[in-house]
Amino acid sequence: MSDTAPAASAPAEPPQPEQPSKNALKKAQKDKEKAQPVVLPAEKKAAAKARELAERSKKDAADAADVSANAYGELPLCGSTDFKPTGKARASLADVSENEDKEITFRCWVENARVQSAKLAFLNLRQGLSTVQAVVAASEKLSKQMVKYCGSISTESTLVVTGLVKRVQEPIKSATIKDFEIHIKELFIEVKADVPLPLQVEDAERPLPSDAAAEDDQKQEEGAERPLVSLNTRLNNRTIDLRAKINQSIFVIKSGVCALFQEFLSKRGFILVQTPKILGAASEGGANVFELKYFDRPAYLAQSPQFYKQMLIASRFQKVMEIGPVFRAENSNTARHLTEFTGLDLEMEFQENYHEVMGVLEDLMLFIFKELNARYRKETELVRGVYHIDDFKLPESGNVPRIPFKEGIAMLREAGEEVGDYDDLTTPQEKMLGRLVLKKYNSDFYTLDQFPLAIRPAYTMPSPADPLLSNSYDMFMRGQEILSGAQRIHDSTLLASQMRKHDPPVDPESAGTKDYVDCFRFGCPPHAGGGFGLERIVQFWLGLPNIRMCSLFPRDPQRVVP
Amino acid sequence: MSDTAPAASAPAEPPQPEQPSKNALKKAQKDKEKAQPVVLPAEKKAAAKARELAERSKKDAADAADVSANAYGELPLCGSTDFKPTGKARASLADVSENEDKEITFRCWVENARVQSAKLAFLNLRQGLSTVQAVVAASEKLSKQMVKYCGSISTESTLVVTGLVKRVQEPIKSATIKDFEIHIKELFIEVKADVPLPLQVEDAERPLPSDAAAEDDQKQEEGAERPLVSLNTRLNNRTIDLRAKINQSIFVIKSGVCALFQEFLSKRGFILVQTPKILGAASEGGANVFELKYFDRPAYLAQSPQFYKQMLIASRFQKVMEIGPVFRAENSNTARHLTEFTGLDLEMEFQENYHEVMGVLEDLMLFIFKELNARYRKETELVRGVYHIDDFKLPESGNVPRIPFKEGIAMLREAGEEVGDYDDLTTPQEKMLGRLVLKKYNSDFYTLDQFPLAIRPAYTMPSPADPLLSNSYDMFMRGQEILSGAQRIHDSTLLASQMRKHDPPVDPESAGTKDYVDCFRFGCPPHAGGGFGLERIVQFWLGLPNIRMCSLFPRDPQRVVP
Repeated sequence: MSDTAPAASAPAEPPQPEQPSKNALKKAQKDKEKAQPVVLPAEKKAAAKARELAERSKKDAADAADVSANAYGELPLCGSTDFKPTGKARASLADVSENEDKEITFRCWVENARVQSAKLAFLNLRQGLSTVQAVVAASEKLSKQMVKYCGSISTESTLVVTGLVKRVQEPIKSATIKDFEIHIKELFIEVKADVPLPLQVEDAERPLPSDAAAEDDQKQEEGAERPLVSLNTRLNNRTIDLRAKINQSIFVIKSGVCALFQEFLSKRGFILVQTPKILGAASEGGANVFELKYFDRPAYLAQSPQFYKQMLIASRFQKVMEIGPVFRAENSNTARHLTEFTGLDLEMEFQENYHEVMGVLEDLMLFIFKELNARYRKETELVRGVYHIDDFKLPESGNVPRIPFKEGIAMLREAGEEVGDYDDLTTPQEKMLGRLVLKKYNSDFYTLDQFPLAIRPAYTMPSPADPLLSNSYDMFMRGQEILSGAQRIHDSTLLASQMRKHDPPVDPESAGTKDYVDCFRFGCPPHAGGGFGLERIVQFWLGLPNIRMCSLFPRDPQRVVP
Repeated sequence: MSDTAPAASAPAEPPQPEQPSKNALKKAQKDKEKAQPVVLPAEKKAAAKARELAERSKKDAADAADVSANAYGELPLCGSTDFKPTGKARASLADVSENEDKEITFRCWVENARVQSAKLAFLNLRQGLSTVQAVVAASEKLSKQMVKYCGSISTESTLVVTGLVKRVQEPIKSATIKDFEIHIKELFIEVKADVPLPLQVEDAERPLPSDAAAEDDQKQEEGAERPLVSLNTRLNNRTIDLRAKINQSIFVIKSGVCALFQEFLSKRGFILVQTPKILGAASEGGANVFELKYFDRPAYLAQSPQFYKQMLIASRFQKVMEIGPVFRAENSNTARHLTEFTGLDLEMEFQENYHEVMGVLEDLMLFIFKELNARYRKETELVRGVYHIDDFKLPESGNVPRIPFKEGIAMLREAGEEVGDYDDLTTPQEKMLGRLVLKKYNSDFYTLDQFPLAIRPAYTMPSPADPLLSNSYDMFMRGQEILSGAQRIHDSTLLASQMRKHDPPVDPESAGTKDYVDCFRFGCPPHAGGGFGLERIVQFWLGLPNIRMCSLFPRDPQRVVP
């Protein structure tokens, strides 16, 4: 131990793990047959505890004779002692190849630890998306006591490790770092993990059970050793579940989509805005809105920033974007609906034709896809690999297929589907059209333009080409909608009249709409925009089976915890 | 008119303006004496309308003889006719100096228009933060009818103008573009603004009445010609109010702070996350929380992302940031409280000492201030100019004053203030300390460290130096708090025990806290973080008198509209 390192306390009595939950106990029993020494069935716990304590006392007595006495043990709770920081650089495992034959110190956590013999223990250590094999070998300078201690650390404990980076002869299959291993010199437990874990991280790395098995934890994946864990169990233990590399990757990509969205639009003069989420009156018809108590009156959660982003165009902001929560009180229990999701919204004035805005939206998404492939390839491949998902196909020409709704209907009819000229498409029809478009245009991304007026919101600009159509569009990924947008009516007289004619009618004089309608009386320029569902972009980019996987703590009609 | 330009309809009958609101009428009457021909008192409206119609009929009849007949008028509602875009480039007024003696076409809106003589009219035109003077002069190629039409356009109407950029001899005082004017060749009204406006944009450019006058619209600013308009009147007409250059600048800066926050932290490995805003149980004690109906059960709006961002650290995300709404059901009617504001939150693991995190926070803010000065100087100066605000002082050494709370107390006592060792500071004391720090360290930005434990949340790590203090900190701008942060307890046993001992006590087993407390049982690394109030950063950077000016559509106990 270097003399600048923190003084470790003598390994203390481990805290008594709290009573495991029912689920955890069931899980632990199922795992009995598995050779994971840290997942102890409940009935063995007391015995194990006694054994551990006995060993600890022995160790305390033997410390004087232990040549490694200062090289391992438990650190005091960080921040609770007035210790001077060592300032010792902490290494990143991602850079391990640059440190061959050097000694590094790094924080990591334990994927698993096992005693091979009295003289040898192995640990799989993880930091971020990297995992590395570490060896603890007894020698004149490293005691057998330390070997035993290191090989018995509970899974998911956080460590500070010092060791030599050594090249290995044979690639290590079980780690992401294949060509190097760590020869441990010092190992301190910084934060010990309780046993048993309520969910194994390695189970969270595996795919969800298929739809048929979704409700049945017991069902085995073909050829798999252990049953796949249901989404509900994972979400109930989300802070463990999220530790899986697949989940870390999903949320790195989600963060990336937000960054790319802003990067592209900022360069084009968009400013980021925050519109209110608490509304004094329900807007946009008032259906599917959550009501709250606002001091002594009712108020409502915004179901989209639609009215406000348009009011900002009327306020001369020209181009605005927003990333914010969107709340929908819809009792939809599907794999692609959430009651709270993240909207990527934009609204902009245009000069002559709303297709200018569609062009911006298409270029935006092409930019995001291209940069996801460039900057987030590792994460994308890691996730798609688990589910065996095809690459996301983009048109080679760079021209996003922009298909008139009428043509989409014709394609569906040609494929044998019965659908009216002005009907809304069902979800299966949308998916079928996605397959037809992929076949015809070789693109998983496309736009439908000129939707029927009757199935769009009242503020949608009617089409000059056909009064039953409108200047509106949806964007799709792998046959599923990710954006809905349109040219909006920027004249208050026409807007009020369209609202009254709409089915169901909207009262332009009501508390939730009057300010909105009135703002178009004072010279608002023509404008269009759209709203993306961020979680859907991530879901369909990766080809994931359920949108809940793309929300850190998803909300649906059944779930508001954790 | 070029043959590719859209065909203008013959100037149509202008839409009948809707009945103006009571406030608007009062306003219009007050404005009577002002030579603003477009703000018509109600009693003159009918006459004016008749006159206008008569003139229009005359114009229609004279069109054959009007050499400019195709060079002016009202465009049809954009998007409502199936017209092929001209694709004609639209110029930016910001680049006008590059187009000397060239013809440009641009969209703009009318600040004011006035007929000088039968042969000459002037318009002040605005686009973004730029304003330019435009001249319409009768000639063989430009009719007197067109001069009259152009000089009579209502304020805030949106236009498409084509004209020659000409250098002027004398700088033009009334416009931001001083050295050039536009000689108009074509002018089309794209969207006509109703008269009267409920609020004059030029009134929105002027400062708020001072505190004493805040409730009294009638009170005159010293030397001002017109009374200053109260904040309430402005906020009631927010979509007009926001058109003022001062307001546009405030929100460009606000957008900039968000971009800089993300730019700095992304480079340091933070990912952007979205934590849920709807919670199944009230957390953090449960006071000041909005309750909502969530299908058949109650739910609550998140009063901060605190628990969730820590749960993400426990989930091994290492460094997370969030930009999102924060909801506080506090009945605080002050100039620096909102019930809905934007939190800039971050949380990160650290290696040895929470001062690592304070260093990141200080560097982050120094970066933001430096880049605001560099990238948003124009907007900053424009806003500060209206309120005569001093520059924001930063320490020349680059070292942010990091003052132990104890030392802050000592400074206050030395200045004659009575305050106990472990007392919380009042707002006036904070402001006084800000003045003392400015005097001593020449910095408007500083940190207080090691706050008394009792006045911080239960999850705050106690200080190893003094059990009555804690590893926590606040950051201040101009003597007002912008961030609160701390090292958090990352051990579930200590956390539960601190919660029980806290005043008021928090039940670690309750629905709102159990998942949070339990997540620290499985190896969560030491971590710290903080939450900024975005609107406060903007307010104190600019030195604005009220935080509502920094929220597009502010929410307070009295206001949920528009």
